[in-house]
Amino acid sequence: MSKLRVESFTILLDGFGAGPDQDLNNPLGVGGTSLHGWALSTRTFQQKLFGGDGGQSGIDDDFAARGFQNMGAWILGRNMFGPIRGPWPGENWRGWWGDNPVYHVPVFVLTNYARPPLAMDGGTTFHFVTEGTVVALERAREAAGGKDVRLGGGVNVIQQYLRQRLIDEMHIAIAPVLLGAGERLFDGVNLRALGYVCTKHEASSQATRIVLSRQ
Amino acid sequence: MSKLRVESFTILLDGFGAGPDQDLNNPLGVGGTSLHGWALSTRTFQQKLFGGDGGQSGIDDDFAARGFQNMGAWILGRNMFGPIRGPWPGENWRGWWGDNPVYHVPVFVLTNYARPPLAMDGGTTFHFVTEGTVVALERAREAAGGKDVRLGGGVNVIQQYLRQRLIDEMHIAIAPVLLGAGERLFDGVNLRALGYVCTKHEASSQATRIVLSRQ
Repeated sequence: MSKLRVESFTILLDGFGAGPDQDLNNPLGVGGTSLHGWALSTRTFQQKLFGGDGGQSGIDDDFAARGFQNMGAWILGRNMFGPIRGPWPGENWRGWWGDNPVYHVPVFVLTNYARPPLAMDGGTTFHFVTEGTVVALERAREAAGGKDVRLGGGVNVIQQYLRQRLIDEMHIAIAPVLLGAGERLFDGVNLRALGYVCTKHEASSQATRIVLSRQ
Repeated sequence: MSKLRVESFTILLDGFGAGPDQDLNNPLGVGGTSLHGWALSTRTFQQKLFGGDGGQSGIDDDFAARGFQNMGAWILGRNMFGPIRGPWPGENWRGWWGDNPVYHVPVFVLTNYARPPLAMDGGTTFHFVTEGTVVALERAREAAGGKDVRLGGGVNVIQQYLRQRLIDEMHIAIAPVLLGAGERLFDGVNLRALGYVCTKHEASSQATRIVLSRQ
C-alpha cells in the first residue's frame, strides 16, 4: 500500500521546524538555514541539489537517501513553493529550485489560488491543488502509481495531515542547534493520542534521527 | 565560580518535560515516568535511589554521574518536593524520597508558604524559601560553599531561572518517547535570544544528550 511519508524533516532542539518571517531571502524563515546543516554535507543532497558526486556517506546519508526511495509524488504547502502570499501576481514564480527541480516526479502544491500546472525540466510538474489536503493526497497517490507520497512540509501542512492521521511515517532529524523562535512542529498536535510511536532512534554527530510511525 | 546547573533533566521528543495532572500517584504527571527510562538503568541512579551496586556504565551513566559532581546544594520547585498545593496542611509531608533523601546536601524548596527547615537523615535539609528565585539562589550558593548549585526543576522553575539568565549550564536528555501533553520545557523561552548555545551533543540508544551553555 502506498504510504504518506515525511522524510528528512529537521527540527531544532527547541522544537522549531521553521524560522519566523519567511521571505525571498529567507526561504526557511530567519535563521532557518541552520535546520539543514546535517543534510547539506551528505552525498544524497550534494547529488540532488548540486549535481555533484561529492558528499559524505554514513548515517546522515542513509537517512537522506531513504527519503528518495520508492517515491512517486510529493505534496508541498504553498510556502514551500515560494514566498508569494495571496493571489498569484502572474506565473513568473516557478519555485526555488531553478529549471530542473530536485523532485523529478509530480508535485502537488496546496494553495487557495488556482493556477495551471507547471511542467519543468527533468520530470517535475507542479500541480496546484485548491481542494485541500485530502484531495491533494488522493491526486498524489494516483500520480504515484503505487509508490509512496512524500509530504515535504511545511510545519502547518504536516500538522494538518497529522491531525487527520493521514501520515504513515515521519523521519525527523533533530539538529543540535537552538533557533529561538518560529513554528514548532508539534505544537497543538498530541502525537501520542493520535496513535504515533517512536519506532527508531539513531544519532550521528550531526543530528539525532527519529522515526515516528502510526500504529 | 559556583555555577547554577541543570543536570539529567529529561524531555521527550515532543518537548514535554513533565506530564499533565501531577498528583500523589503521578509525581511526574500522567505518563511522566517514561521520562526517566534512560536514567533508571544507570549505575549512578541505582546507587543513589536504591543503594544497590548494579546498573550500567557508559554514556548514560557518565551523564547521570556528572550531575552529582561538585554539587553543594539543590534548588527545587515546590511541586518537585510533593503533590500538596496551597498552604501546608501540617508537617507530615517530608518529600517523595523517604527518611534518607538522595541529595545529602542542603535543598532549597521554592514555595509561597513558609515552613520550618526539615532535617532528614544523610545530610539532606530542606529549606523552604518564600522570597523567590533570586533569594533561593543566593542562599543555595552560600550553603554550597564554593561548589555548584543544581536546579532540579520542574519545568516552570527552570523557565523562571532561564528568563533571568541565571543558569550557567543545562544538561538535557531527550528520550525517544512521545508524551503527547504536559508542560514543554522551552515554551515561552527564547534560548537563542537569551544567549544559550548547544555546546555538546551525544547520544546513546536510550537518549540524546545535549548541553546548553550560557555565552
